[in-house]
Amino acid sequence: MKNPETSIFAALLFLSVYASAQKFEKLYQYVNPLIGTEKMGHTYPGATVPFGAIQLSPETDTISYELNGKYNGEVYKYCAGYRYEDKTITGFSSTHFSGTGHSDLGDFLIMPTVGTLQLNPGTASNPENGYRSRFSHQNEKAEAGYYRVKLDDHNILAELTATPRVGVHRYTFPKSDQSHIILDLMAGIYNYDGKNVWTYARVENNNTITGYRQTNGWARTRTVYFAMTFSKPFKSYGQKSYDEKQVYKGFWRKFDQTKNSPEIAGKNLKMYFDFDTNENEAIEIKFAISPVSQTNALENLEQETGRLSFDQIKAKAQENWNKELNKIIIKGSDTQKTNFYTAMYHTFINPTIYMDVNGEYKGLDQNTHKAENFTNYTTFSLWDTYRALHPFFNIIQPKRNNDMVRSMMAHYNQFSMKMLPIWSHYANDNWCMSGYHSVSVVADAIIKGNYDGDPKEALRACVETANKRDYEGIGQYIDSGYIPAEKNGTSVSNTLEYAYDDWAIAQLAKHLGETEIYNQFIKRSTNWKNNFDKTIGFMRPRLADGSFKKDFDVLSTHGQGFIEGNSWNYSFFVPQSPNELITMMGGKKKFASKLDELFTMHLPDEFFADTEDITREGIIGGYVHGNEPAHHVAYLYNWADQPWKAQSQIRHILEMQYKATPDGLGGNDDTGQMSAWYILSSLGFYPVAPGSEDYSIGSPAIENAVLHLENGKIFEIEAINQSPQNVYVQKVLLNGKEIKNFTLKHSEIVNGGKLTFYMGNKAKK
Amino acid sequence: MKNPETSIFAALLFLSVYASAQKFEKLYQYVNPLIGTEKMGHTYPGATVPFGAIQLSPETDTISYELNGKYNGEVYKYCAGYRYEDKTITGFSSTHFSGTGHSDLGDFLIMPTVGTLQLNPGTASNPENGYRSRFSHQNEKAEAGYYRVKLDDHNILAELTATPRVGVHRYTFPKSDQSHIILDLMAGIYNYDGKNVWTYARVENNNTITGYRQTNGWARTRTVYFAMTFSKPFKSYGQKSYDEKQVYKGFWRKFDQTKNSPEIAGKNLKMYFDFDTNENEAIEIKFAISPVSQTNALENLEQETGRLSFDQIKAKAQENWNKELNKIIIKGSDTQKTNFYTAMYHTFINPTIYMDVNGEYKGLDQNTHKAENFTNYTTFSLWDTYRALHPFFNIIQPKRNNDMVRSMMAHYNQFSMKMLPIWSHYANDNWCMSGYHSVSVVADAIIKGNYDGDPKEALRACVETANKRDYEGIGQYIDSGYIPAEKNGTSVSNTLEYAYDDWAIAQLAKHLGETEIYNQFIKRSTNWKNNFDKTIGFMRPRLADGSFKKDFDVLSTHGQGFIEGNSWNYSFFVPQSPNELITMMGGKKKFASKLDELFTMHLPDEFFADTEDITREGIIGGYVHGNEPAHHVAYLYNWADQPWKAQSQIRHILEMQYKATPDGLGGNDDTGQMSAWYILSSLGFYPVAPGSEDYSIGSPAIENAVLHLENGKIFEIEAINQSPQNVYVQKVLLNGKEIKNFTLKHSEIVNGGKLTFYMGNKAKK
Repeated sequence: MKNPETSIFAALLFLSVYASAQKFEKLYQYVNPLIGTEKMGHTYPGATVPFGAIQLSPETDTISYELNGKYNGEVYKYCAGYRYEDKTITGFSSTHFSGTGHSDLGDFLIMPTVGTLQLNPGTASNPENGYRSRFSHQNEKAEAGYYRVKLDDHNILAELTATPRVGVHRYTFPKSDQSHIILDLMAGIYNYDGKNVWTYARVENNNTITGYRQTNGWARTRTVYFAMTFSKPFKSYGQKSYDEKQVYKGFWRKFDQTKNSPEIAGKNLKMYFDFDTNENEAIEIKFAISPVSQTNALENLEQETGRLSFDQIKAKAQENWNKELNKIIIKGSDTQKTNFYTAMYHTFINPTIYMDVNGEYKGLDQNTHKAENFTNYTTFSLWDTYRALHPFFNIIQPKRNNDMVRSMMAHYNQFSMKMLPIWSHYANDNWCMSGYHSVSVVADAIIKGNYDGDPKEALRACVETANKRDYEGIGQYIDSGYIPAEKNGTSVSNTLEYAYDDWAIAQLAKHLGETEIYNQFIKRSTNWKNNFDKTIGFMRPRLADGSFKKDFDVLSTHGQGFIEGNSWNYSFFVPQSPNELITMMGGKKKFASKLDELFTMHLPDEFFADTEDITREGIIGGYVHGNEPAHHVAYLYNWADQPWKAQSQIRHILEMQYKATPDGLGGNDDTGQMSAWYILSSLGFYPVAPGSEDYSIGSPAIENAVLHLENGKIFEIEAINQSPQNVYVQKVLLNGKEIKNFTLKHSEIVNGGKLTFYMGNKAKK
Repeated sequence: MKNPETSIFAALLFLSVYASAQKFEKLYQYVNPLIGTEKMGHTYPGATVPFGAIQLSPETDTISYELNGKYNGEVYKYCAGYRYEDKTITGFSSTHFSGTGHSDLGDFLIMPTVGTLQLNPGTASNPENGYRSRFSHQNEKAEAGYYRVKLDDHNILAELTATPRVGVHRYTFPKSDQSHIILDLMAGIYNYDGKNVWTYARVENNNTITGYRQTNGWARTRTVYFAMTFSKPFKSYGQKSYDEKQVYKGFWRKFDQTKNSPEIAGKNLKMYFDFDTNENEAIEIKFAISPVSQTNALENLEQETGRLSFDQIKAKAQENWNKELNKIIIKGSDTQKTNFYTAMYHTFINPTIYMDVNGEYKGLDQNTHKAENFTNYTTFSLWDTYRALHPFFNIIQPKRNNDMVRSMMAHYNQFSMKMLPIWSHYANDNWCMSGYHSVSVVADAIIKGNYDGDPKEALRACVETANKRDYEGIGQYIDSGYIPAEKNGTSVSNTLEYAYDDWAIAQLAKHLGETEIYNQFIKRSTNWKNNFDKTIGFMRPRLADGSFKKDFDVLSTHGQGFIEGNSWNYSFFVPQSPNELITMMGGKKKFASKLDELFTMHLPDEFFADTEDITREGIIGGYVHGNEPAHHVAYLYNWADQPWKAQSQIRHILEMQYKATPDGLGGNDDTGQMSAWYILSSLGFYPVAPGSEDYSIGSPAIENAVLHLENGKIFEIEAINQSPQNVYVQKVLLNGKEIKNFTLKHSEIVNGGKLTFYMGNKAKK
């Protein structure tokens, strides 16, 4: 029976939240999208809205994935298309990953120019030989939902903003009868000769173009459709094909194909549009994308932007960001706010919407599907994001996280292999990294009450995924309890991660009363023990005959059975059973000492060189925060009864690894995982083992934080006596009642309430 | 007011027609699809249903469009995939053109084999080195809707039948534990390296595969989707990629991709499926295609074949053919019947349905459209078919011809260039040949009352098409009244054909009361005069300065301003104004003598060598029946008051150019145009100028023909005293009333009635 008083209270609370929502703080002013654009952050500075399908951002060079037919290491720097240290911009494209360590996308590069038409991008050293332009950071401004830069060589001001599915460009030209806008269908990130499978463009009328780009890259079979409109009709247009071979090039020979020919198709094409412009005349482009069709792209364009101007769209984009950022109101220094809200911004970029306004999207079966009562998402970098990003969403974006799980289930159902995603990428799986961590995201969401689909069907999908014997050693893992090192280059990572994932499945099974599945997977979750070499106290590759690999180096990340980490880091990867790991490692004291050693050891440069995706500063001792396997490690001190060491290390990491500068991120942001770690740890707790309701308490970095939850509840965190020196928690109270075990439950957050930390500069032992 | 008696009469007539429809003659037994498969006919022998989207037929070799990077003349012979003189079969593919002189298609080659798996086709001289097999015509049977052949090397009986969108294969195997069915996604007609833009296949379950083939060939941007089912689950399957470059080939490295990997994608792929078979075990394949999606292909498969067996589908296909063939019941010799019904069969193959069972099809804008209340067609070879095929449809397939005009209008509306089709080919225009003859088809259908769309919109489309100044000299044609020879290699053909087309537009405008348009286009229709050189009495290229081309040869087809014809043939191409042409040529007597000369002259071999698409036998004197520009020429004797010469020539052509043998066709059947000429001329009349209601009367070859019209009316043709010698018409009566002017009106046919010829062996002068 419903308590009428409670209902009235809830209604009042809702009204008060709603009222406060009407006067959001202008938190988007603290977002600096340039953070992470230098060194290893791999973020992009351009315009996007929360979880937007469009990521409209500048490219600063055209580095090919290949050099002389081989992988070109230089391309790695350009994962997000933009490098802060570069001096020229080649144009503005519609799609980008945020913080990845491999890449793709960069579709539909657009560049405005003035003067003689040049269709090649030119080089950084000689920008005048192409369409690219010099720029300077003085004339550049990046905000949440807005980006601006002066293109010095063309004397054009370029501005970008976006809706979820439409990128909006505004180019303010000088007076010229030779103003051009180039649409380079050949350009792209991680491009190589042959990556464009097919492109097509069609001039619908004197200001509308539609078409598509089909690529074979990190996503094997991928097509993005587009529709673009110019605010001003072009006076003429043209095309150029760079296809070396066109058997039927005489095909359309009955027309002049260079000027004003309304349709092009091929693999290597560029188009241009000519305008007469007056001094300071602005031309706006609305550029919509769709995973399904040009028709849908046009509908996206119409529905999302209609007759809205650039300024109106920009205002909506920033209002949109503000609404999301206002879900957490913190007190702290301006630098802290910049770090915090930029981190929030980075967590709310990925996964990305992969669905048209009419609900249609392309499935992994290459068919068009309609999302029924959910928003379909892609860009799931799950090896990274199961750890903290999705758990963070379970607190602050539960509806979206529900839809992300629905999206994973759609992926599973549509995919020929019938597996949940490993790395979902535009109706493909790119199979990046180890584990089958979507099961963790699924289990965590269901256990935390954030899934409106059929939970038993979801469990079946998890079980089926975990039983794909042909997939990366799973068969051997099931048969032997570990993956023989001869069979798999990352045998230890895989075994450890499978074991954790199996534990998550077991938790879900328990939650759903599926005892048999629970028993099976809880047993599998102990498989980490099979790679633990007690004689050395480290995880170690094991051969088919049961013996451990000889010539083993606990510091190296190269050829030792691990991925993005060495044995030192991975040996702590038993998030599901820290207590058992502690026992295996000789008890709490020895375990704590080992953690001490990790954080203080000297990692020789030769081993750093092997470590991917991070800067030298991304390492503390031998602890590699720039890569994910160690993200829970500092919190393990809590299990060793030395929580004060967790507290100081966490505060140290927060300070050292996240700086409010372009080069401020210690490693790839990894579609928001690094930023989610920052936010949760700043708030004072972290999900060591998603799939459990428990958060492990660390040391909050903010003075105060108010979380406005979607259920209308408020959860407040206060840190009394907070200061950079007062990193030690003296006492922590939940709704006035002391927490003794350094554990906070998810339900305690979502029920609303207050977490009060008393901070001090001395460890409370 | 309605006359009740007439109504009752109509009802009775309807009942009688309906009753007779229940006991159709087995006319499909007279169809021999092997006719035209040798020499120049370019027909295919496989299984299709009337206007079916599927043309399931054997391929006898794998000739590439290119040889050492250049056009390979040998490929021309393989336009239809099958050559009667070949000794081996490489497999059975789903799509073929019938009778064309350029080609494409051959999608989804399937080949059953026994023994060690071989994925390459092998060569004709060493078939055992590949999957192909020897065969002999003794073990081959081709019928309307059914094809059978024994594959000697594999001891497999292959049988084919079809529904409109589903090809059905039945392979009867010997006992073997090494039986295979190969799906070669690389194979195709007029293939070349790079023609496959992308292919994709997905194993849905143990007997269902879906996927698509995307090509860049004669159709620039073309994708065909498929869904196939096996009647028996395969025991295993595999794939092989022949892609030289696959940057992300390690992409799916986490799986074994050679065996039982359920998804493939790339440019050069083959799949195979393994079976254990017992002696004489038949495996059936249902193979559906769709222009839109795999989902639609599956729906086509389900809707059209459901649980029907091969034999049931074959029976339906043949019943379907029988129903269509019974629209004309002739009396004549068995050879005549074979020629006549095979010709009817060939006229009812193209255009082909381009639409799924749910009404969806891909438009020229690359979007998916839904056909509202019509069936969408493609494969319009209009330079050929406007002459007699579409006029024949206006008599015997008016509903389908209406839908074909609707399809042309959809093409016009969806195409970026806003033109009616020149050669409509799977959501592309391949621009083959001269003129804009769809206007003739549109005008003819509307004038004859066979169009349920908006006729004024159709007229606008005709006018817009005829005013595309950038298209093949139209601008110069409009400005100067002819196309200067310097500007265009086929300037005279174009001018003559545009002039006829303009006349057709004028007729439509007149029909619709659009006087201004009529005046404009009737004036343009006289432009043929600008290429007529009175001094020599021939059509002749003219230069920009108004002078005629020097060094001109009336016999040559090479570089003289004509296409598929020389000046001798094209000089008679004024179907819209024979009387004016006669005047220009010096009067009736001189004109008739000139026709005599055409039919009796000796054309030196050097000029034959220049003439495309025909056999030596395809020429009578200098008259080239194997190419279309002369198809109306024999009938022109009627205008010269020497109808008996028309009569004898027509009977001569019918006898010489159409033989009931594989090598029996004197030229490319051209998607049914040659066959339509045969049928109409055999019936005794021909549409010299489509766009007019008039048919010119020739000499019937049959004894009797009864046309069962769609409106329920019956039109009977009787030739009294018919014999091979009695080619001369002594008298012709319509419903008992003598026709004096050798003209029959369309309305006189469709109102029902009887045309009686009295034949004799002497010309009636």
